[in-house]
Amino acid sequence: MRNLKLTIEYNGSQFFGWQKQNGKRTVQGELESAIFALTKEKVIVEGSGRTDRGVHALGQVASLKIENKMPIKNFKTALNNLLPHDVKIKKVEKCEDDFHARFSAKKKTYCYVVQIGGEESAIKHALMGFYSYDVDFEKMRELSKLFIGKHNFKGFCSSDTNVTNFEREIFDFKVSKHGKVYKFEVTGNGFLYNMVRILVGTLLDCGRGKISEEDIRTALKTGDRSLSGKTMEPNGLYLKKVEYAK
Amino acid sequence: MRNLKLTIEYNGSQFFGWQKQNGKRTVQGELESAIFALTKEKVIVEGSGRTDRGVHALGQVASLKIENKMPIKNFKTALNNLLPHDVKIKKVEKCEDDFHARFSAKKKTYCYVVQIGGEESAIKHALMGFYSYDVDFEKMRELSKLFIGKHNFKGFCSSDTNVTNFEREIFDFKVSKHGKVYKFEVTGNGFLYNMVRILVGTLLDCGRGKISEEDIRTALKTGDRSLSGKTMEPNGLYLKKVEYAK
Repeated sequence: MRNLKLTIEYNGSQFFGWQKQNGKRTVQGELESAIFALTKEKVIVEGSGRTDRGVHALGQVASLKIENKMPIKNFKTALNNLLPHDVKIKKVEKCEDDFHARFSAKKKTYCYVVQIGGEESAIKHALMGFYSYDVDFEKMRELSKLFIGKHNFKGFCSSDTNVTNFEREIFDFKVSKHGKVYKFEVTGNGFLYNMVRILVGTLLDCGRGKISEEDIRTALKTGDRSLSGKTMEPNGLYLKKVEYAK
Repeated sequence: MRNLKLTIEYNGSQFFGWQKQNGKRTVQGELESAIFALTKEKVIVEGSGRTDRGVHALGQVASLKIENKMPIKNFKTALNNLLPHDVKIKKVEKCEDDFHARFSAKKKTYCYVVQIGGEESAIKHALMGFYSYDVDFEKMRELSKLFIGKHNFKGFCSSDTNVTNFEREIFDFKVSKHGKVYKFEVTGNGFLYNMVRILVGTLLDCGRGKISEEDIRTALKTGDRSLSGKTMEPNGLYLKKVEYAK
């Protein structure tokens, strides 16, 4: 058995998310089918985490154990030829037996892309979120720093009955813009359900003056979800990078 | 009855083209349904021309006759609220009774966007074509001028039994690039079936040295389709603009 690490890009707009579900088109399902078509092995492709319906990935990571001995380079090419156009394997690497895409992950970086105001584009709708109000860019950039460090993010997630520990550490939060298109890039040791979409919605709601800096500080202290901002749509969200210990 | 002119943007990737077909999701079908939902009138939305499955539009034009008296501005907003995210009305205008989106059209501009070499993007696949060979940009730009003017384009279209006259006039042909992304923009009085996709494929096949300048000249003279280049995929094609006499 070899343990392989895959780095995967996908456009989430036509998937019911990452996780395999009966009768639904999912990224995990497409990958496992392509691997079965190629090797006749029924493997489980373990992702670094699920992504929701409509969420994209530039660098999702998955691991899988497989008997097949095909050279790594051929394996990548053969899989890409079998996969649909909206999923692409960027890299295949051999890894240690104990490597697991989810349990070994140390850092994840998500990027949220959003158009501020103007007319929504029909062409690019699946690739970016939309926020119809004017926002104060410098204020959002400054307030994004409030999230850096270890915090209880209970006030910045949707309820998920599997979670009891809401502490996560944010290492970096960058806000940039190019014309009407704003980009929020956040790196952390892990994220709660809908957390990135709510962090971005909170900064935008602050940027337009609907929420105050004090609301953010209080939500971080008390875990009160009613003080934080809206949950942004999934279409602007990209899982950019997953990092592991060397 | 009012005669209205619509300017429409759409992402063609999830449509079976412009033209209404039973049981299929089409742009014309979505527009007529939204208009019916709003006004209870069964109108026919006449496009300036069909676009194929997967082809996009930045400025498709359509006309329709309708009883409804709603102010133009409200009509646009109400329709956009009813339409799916991948179709958007950019403009609604009142027009003369004899205006017809197809028969009154004088010029159309199409744009083809293609990535040259490198790895194909899963994220942007639906929005651009792909060509895997290196090409000579200056040569393509120069050769594109061969198409300007009135020519018999029989050698540059797919067979379409409704057509007997293959003469079309090309007014302008621009080739530009930005990194690996090349753009071909062509304006003409009309285009034959698959003509833009074949013109672009021909320039690319020339750009990589598979076809010669002489082949293009001969295909223009003789109408021999075997001398021209490949038909590019629909996903890189955009109907950019339709122009009418003032």
